Amino acid sequence: MIFRRLLSTASSSKFSLQPTIKQLLSHPVSSQETTIVSGWIKSIRKQKNVSFAVITDGSSPQGLQAVLMKGRDDELLRGLTNGTAVRITGRLVSSPGAGQSHELLVEKDMERNVMILGECNPDTYPIQKKDLSTEYLRDNVHLRARTSQISAMLRLRDTLQRRIDSWFETQGFCYVNTPIITGNDAEGAGEAFRIAQVESAHPAAAEAQTTTLPPTEFFGRPAFLTVSHQLHLEALATALSRVYTLSPCFRAEKSMTGRHLAEFWMLEAEWAFPTDNSVHNVCDVTESLLKATLSGLLESEDAAVLWKDGDAQKRNLIISASDSSKPWARMSYSEAIKHLEHRHSTNPFDYTPQWGHQLQSEHERWLAESFVGGPVFVTDYPAKLKPFYMRMNDDGETVACFDLLVPNVGELIGGSVREERAHLLEEKMGDISGSEWYIDLRKYGGAPHAGFGMGFERLVVW
Amino acid sequence: MIFRRLLSTASSSKFSLQPTIKQLLSHPVSSQETTIVSGWIKSIRKQKNVSFAVITDGSSPQGLQAVLMKGRDDELLRGLTNGTAVRITGRLVSSPGAGQSHELLVEKDMERNVMILGECNPDTYPIQKKDLSTEYLRDNVHLRARTSQISAMLRLRDTLQRRIDSWFETQGFCYVNTPIITGNDAEGAGEAFRIAQVESAHPAAAEAQTTTLPPTEFFGRPAFLTVSHQLHLEALATALSRVYTLSPCFRAEKSMTGRHLAEFWMLEAEWAFPTDNSVHNVCDVTESLLKATLSGLLESEDAAVLWKDGDAQKRNLIISASDSSKPWARMSYSEAIKHLEHRHSTNPFDYTPQWGHQLQSEHERWLAESFVGGPVFVTDYPAKLKPFYMRMNDDGETVACFDLLVPNVGELIGGSVREERAHLLEEKMGDISGSEWYIDLRKYGGAPHAGFGMGFERLVVW
Repeated sequence: MIFRRLLSTASSSKFSLQPTIKQLLSHPVSSQETTIVSGWIKSIRKQKNVSFAVITDGSSPQGLQAVLMKGRDDELLRGLTNGTAVRITGRLVSSPGAGQSHELLVEKDMERNVMILGECNPDTYPIQKKDLSTEYLRDNVHLRARTSQISAMLRLRDTLQRRIDSWFETQGFCYVNTPIITGNDAEGAGEAFRIAQVESAHPAAAEAQTTTLPPTEFFGRPAFLTVSHQLHLEALATALSRVYTLSPCFRAEKSMTGRHLAEFWMLEAEWAFPTDNSVHNVCDVTESLLKATLSGLLESEDAAVLWKDGDAQKRNLIISASDSSKPWARMSYSEAIKHLEHRHSTNPFDYTPQWGHQLQSEHERWLAESFVGGPVFVTDYPAKLKPFYMRMNDDGETVACFDLLVPNVGELIGGSVREERAHLLEEKMGDISGSEWYIDLRKYGGAPHAGFGMGFERLVVW
Repeated sequence: MIFRRLLSTASSSKFSLQPTIKQLLSHPVSSQETTIVSGWIKSIRKQKNVSFAVITDGSSPQGLQAVLMKGRDDELLRGLTNGTAVRITGRLVSSPGAGQSHELLVEKDMERNVMILGECNPDTYPIQKKDLSTEYLRDNVHLRARTSQISAMLRLRDTLQRRIDSWFETQGFCYVNTPIITGNDAEGAGEAFRIAQVESAHPAAAEAQTTTLPPTEFFGRPAFLTVSHQLHLEALATALSRVYTLSPCFRAEKSMTGRHLAEFWMLEAEWAFPTDNSVHNVCDVTESLLKATLSGLLESEDAAVLWKDGDAQKRNLIISASDSSKPWARMSYSEAIKHLEHRHSTNPFDYTPQWGHQLQSEHERWLAESFVGGPVFVTDYPAKLKPFYMRMNDDGETVACFDLLVPNVGELIGGSVREERAHLLEEKMGDISGSEWYIDLRKYGGAPHAGFGMGFERLVVW
């Protein structure tokens, strides 16, 4: 048949893209082989008989130095400026220079071996070599990933996410996606965004609008963007036992601080059958996950790009926190209040610490940064300070929950045992319409379960 | 210090949750050891001196049979009904029964070794053993993951996603998250949802509303839910070279077919420096990813649950498609039209196939299901049928793109080389306001790049 002629000749089983610079450097090929490297010029030094161009393809922070021996190629050389996209063919040889194991040597035929794929006018290119301010990069957001800092941060996020996925897989968790568009405001934890259909300029779209539903009610009833996936995860945990999701959440809080974003990615996990009904099993899981995720991370090259010289103390705090032989501190809310009151009596806070009231940001910082000097689980808060779904302790006053406070960030993650006793939950929830399904989960093989939620961006900030 | 007393005694480096049933069966412990299994009763047979209960924790399709030797425990036995959550302590022994390698033996002390964690009234429990209809499960959506089919589907999604992540990691791609809330309607590919802030009943929320911005403009300008992440990925690919994302997208298309959802997860990948400017490199990447993802998947126990007896033909099609030694068929749009016209002349379609017009669903199905009998890349469509960002071929009429058509699904995935020549792009785009950044990407080291997008749900359906 005719189309058979068009079959790709490459055997797809062996197909793979050209190695990235990172892959090349971690598995260097023989210096006898021809190697092709594609990327952007990060910096270039032109000397009389030779030029040194550092090429980056974004796969690693350091890039690869190309050594270009000069021929009759003045015009080509002029085009090699910062930001230019190039494809260079050469041989990967051991480098005599410090700080690099290999370099790409182009001895001759530069016109053939160096190809400019995309020019970059050095006079107007917005990403110059000097450090650029956050504000400047916000105005040039489409190009900011070309800076060392932003690209290192993106790779670090990738690494964090893969480590998180790997930890959960080892522990038998199933990755699930729960709905973003939801019919309720979930836990009332924040304000929800409401969504409506758009009147689009697209002609095909205009046609589709000739329906009887008003544009604000696409689904026939109000619809919101989810603020949390927890309630859905609880339903899935009563079937799959261990589930987690890393999904976008949305909160319409009016805040310009670094702690609240309108759109953020939330890591949420939920599992059935904790070993007991205390919060310590939840703390154990959380601590194990975070240590596995952070361990050795700061020694990576990407982390090195992001740490400034003055940050040595913060850096040591995190390295110490990821040490698996040192368990993190834990204290109950009531104990925390006692410590805060003690310090307040000699060195007052702005807000008086008082049992039954929320911990203020200054309280949380003092506990983590000064009193403990590291991460601390504060557990068993008064029930009235926490959402309805947390499990009541035997004292009838506090719930089996924790907030993990870490230096320089504040609350990183919060978790709890969930109330599995249907009658207690019904008392607390009262007559919330549409909540029957949530009670149902407890009535039909309602297993004890627990979970936590963490803003992924806060982990990255930490 | 006081809080030190509260430190967890468990060494967190060695912490892990109890093994799931899946983990237990893949690494069975010695039959001398005591084993604890938590889960739900999937079925139970009560005999005079012994009862057989199949326990599932959702980690695998088959569950684990517990053998309960009878003592003076009639009341406890009565409570062991389908759906009940239990914790059973016993010994994992080789099973004499067919279809299972091991079983959990509880020889004595049933009152101590079998603990009911959550009762389940057999008269009202909505998930009975018989096959339940889709409509019925939609009404009991909070419990549907307890069925074999839905839980197998969820585990299969998890497996698919991990394989996809793993393939991209091997190929040097960086996982990135791009914004869900966006200022533009992206490619005009569908209708966008517009978002607004909600007037919440939450008292704290009401306070926060005393701002000057009208509630419909939380961001000070119109905001939409993204319909595609591609344009953001293009920006990142000009810095990190290879990026992908698996993120929710939203389209407000009025459609009740199985092919269009208001909310769906989209796998999108974008990479710089394809080997040439033809679409075949993009097809190679796509084919390699899909084969790696599908290979051996249908032999899994979860897939076995989902395949019904009559589906043998579909099943064989997919197994054949994932055979890495058989490249998938490729044909140009122009050739496809010729084949369609030929068939139309003897056996007419409802719609006449014609160069310059979209392929209809019946055309796509015939090509994949009858003409090729497997997946087929249809490439190089007329430019006017495709979005502005696809790269113009040398013929000046068609663009370097493909749609991958697969039997029983239709279009699974679409991809293209992107237009990297700024002047051609400017001609096509005209004066779209706010598009300067997109042109900028081409002006400053604008590397050739390519990408594809696939609805994750369609892959699952396939």
